[in-house]
Amino acid sequence: MVREGRVSARDVAEHAGCSVSAVSLVVNGKDAGRISPELRERVLAAVTELDYRPNRSARSLVTGDSGTICVVLPDPANPFFGDVLAGLGAALGDEHTLALVLPTSGTDYDQRTVLRAYSLDPAGVVLISPGEPVLRGLVPRCPTLVVDAPGRTPPLPRVDLDTVAAGELISDHLTALGHRGFGYIGPKSDKPTFRTRREAFLDRVTGAEVLHTLDLPDWDPLAAAVTMASVLPGWLDSGVTAVVCADDLLGYGVLTALDRLGRSGVAVVGMGDLPFSQLCRPALTSVDFAGRRAGELAGQSLLSWISTGERPRRARVPAKLMVRASTEKG
Amino acid sequence: MVREGRVSARDVAEHAGCSVSAVSLVVNGKDAGRISPELRERVLAAVTELDYRPNRSARSLVTGDSGTICVVLPDPANPFFGDVLAGLGAALGDEHTLALVLPTSGTDYDQRTVLRAYSLDPAGVVLISPGEPVLRGLVPRCPTLVVDAPGRTPPLPRVDLDTVAAGELISDHLTALGHRGFGYIGPKSDKPTFRTRREAFLDRVTGAEVLHTLDLPDWDPLAAAVTMASVLPGWLDSGVTAVVCADDLLGYGVLTALDRLGRSGVAVVGMGDLPFSQLCRPALTSVDFAGRRAGELAGQSLLSWISTGERPRRARVPAKLMVRASTEKG
Repeated sequence: MVREGRVSARDVAEHAGCSVSAVSLVVNGKDAGRISPELRERVLAAVTELDYRPNRSARSLVTGDSGTICVVLPDPANPFFGDVLAGLGAALGDEHTLALVLPTSGTDYDQRTVLRAYSLDPAGVVLISPGEPVLRGLVPRCPTLVVDAPGRTPPLPRVDLDTVAAGELISDHLTALGHRGFGYIGPKSDKPTFRTRREAFLDRVTGAEVLHTLDLPDWDPLAAAVTMASVLPGWLDSGVTAVVCADDLLGYGVLTALDRLGRSGVAVVGMGDLPFSQLCRPALTSVDFAGRRAGELAGQSLLSWISTGERPRRARVPAKLMVRASTEKG
Repeated sequence: MVREGRVSARDVAEHAGCSVSAVSLVVNGKDAGRISPELRERVLAAVTELDYRPNRSARSLVTGDSGTICVVLPDPANPFFGDVLAGLGAALGDEHTLALVLPTSGTDYDQRTVLRAYSLDPAGVVLISPGEPVLRGLVPRCPTLVVDAPGRTPPLPRVDLDTVAAGELISDHLTALGHRGFGYIGPKSDKPTFRTRREAFLDRVTGAEVLHTLDLPDWDPLAAAVTMASVLPGWLDSGVTAVVCADDLLGYGVLTALDRLGRSGVAVVGMGDLPFSQLCRPALTSVDFAGRRAGELAGQSLLSWISTGERPRRARVPAKLMVRASTEKG
């Protein structure tokens, strides 16, 4: 059946031979005990046949729900994303539903995950730490804000972590301590956040005499520890005295590897400042990206965008170097 | 490209030069191993170019539910809940929307948070680690499954962690190592999960000669470390040789306090087996509650309940003691 224009609840009611309010009850899941199962079936058949889509904003006037905010993130088991999520939840409050759209497998999302978010007809979307292919293929269908995608990304409102400052702060700190031999470890990843962390560090350590880099295929700190236990001896022999990690999880792996190798006096720095970095021994020097604050800011900006129609400006959350025992002279 | 009327899957298929079912597979994330990466790229490009929006509401109306599963949890920044959430997300797949309903302030939820979840007209609700007042006031309005609320809770389907086995495993392990003086540290909390952890341990250590218990007002490992630094000397002087913690986060605090006090040879055990327990030094002996598995099982049971109408049975996920350096003789 082909129809002109948008299908309304009235069309569905006509087609099913019932009242508009019966359609509304079925569509909003309020029909139990109010209308017969036969009528419900007839309404659903008409809805399907006419491809009727209940108008969410009309419905929200009735239910008092001012809309769903879809949050797309790589992996809720990573504590950094947990922090961002907690900040987002606090900012959205109870006026909005926070729909979490996760990759159906693995620990990162792709374009299909984003399409799934838009298919929910949300009032707004937040994409956290997206990869390049996601950004390249992005066609925003509602106010869409990106958290942590520095660089040449589509002209979307963003809340960025200060990944460039991170690389510079770490380079300056280690250079001031007299280090001249460096190893840099990051994940194998197409994400702008990791590209800029790495570039900012490498651009800044101009005084390096030795410089190794390594991309690890895995996030798991224990897998990193195993790999590093075989890589580190060569690095240290060639003059590396400081190891910089694109993420604290990798930093824990390096500390574990050094411990197993019985090597001390090697400086280790992470990025992200997970809570455990204060507790491991040696405590891990790291850059605090203020993930919770980034989540709060993203939530506030998106809500203001939705209610005023004005696109928020880009924002960057300041980063801070937390100096701890892992970069003290051993 | 401008088109009249609504873009359909057929339009996308025509544009990409493929079948409608290929479009459906890609859009629903079911294409892995079924169509080539090249075709997948072509479909995604057509989807983007035509601004095709898969009709989610029609699909969910056909399946007879609103498609939304509300998950209520205390704090997404706690890695244990992140694990449960990852398991739930994997089980729900892309047929259902995972709406995350969080406390609007603080790190725990109350009855109002649960009412907010029901107000979204979800197909099902999952409550994770609820407190007693939440359980007492609960009036389920749709299939509602509780994760981690052992004891005399309302007669709802549950997936429990084996908190009783945890207390017993730890008691047996420490007693076999010759310990007779114990300290037990838990959070100040009304939650059944913490009451049973504590009771199971205390009921089992019948051979204890010295037994202290302490409720900490705070979850933060560093706050725990500060408190424990002043409490531990008294405990150790009175004969405590092993400290049992209701959660790994508190265990990290105890390890840090012992380190600062310069005391070694004290056994420490946690519960929850967070990833960092393998990495801290000494690595923390802990009970693995298999949070991700609990989340998966909860998601699967709830979906089966919703689709068949049959209430799932209670389930309990087996716990396992992970023995590490923190309970080796120092």
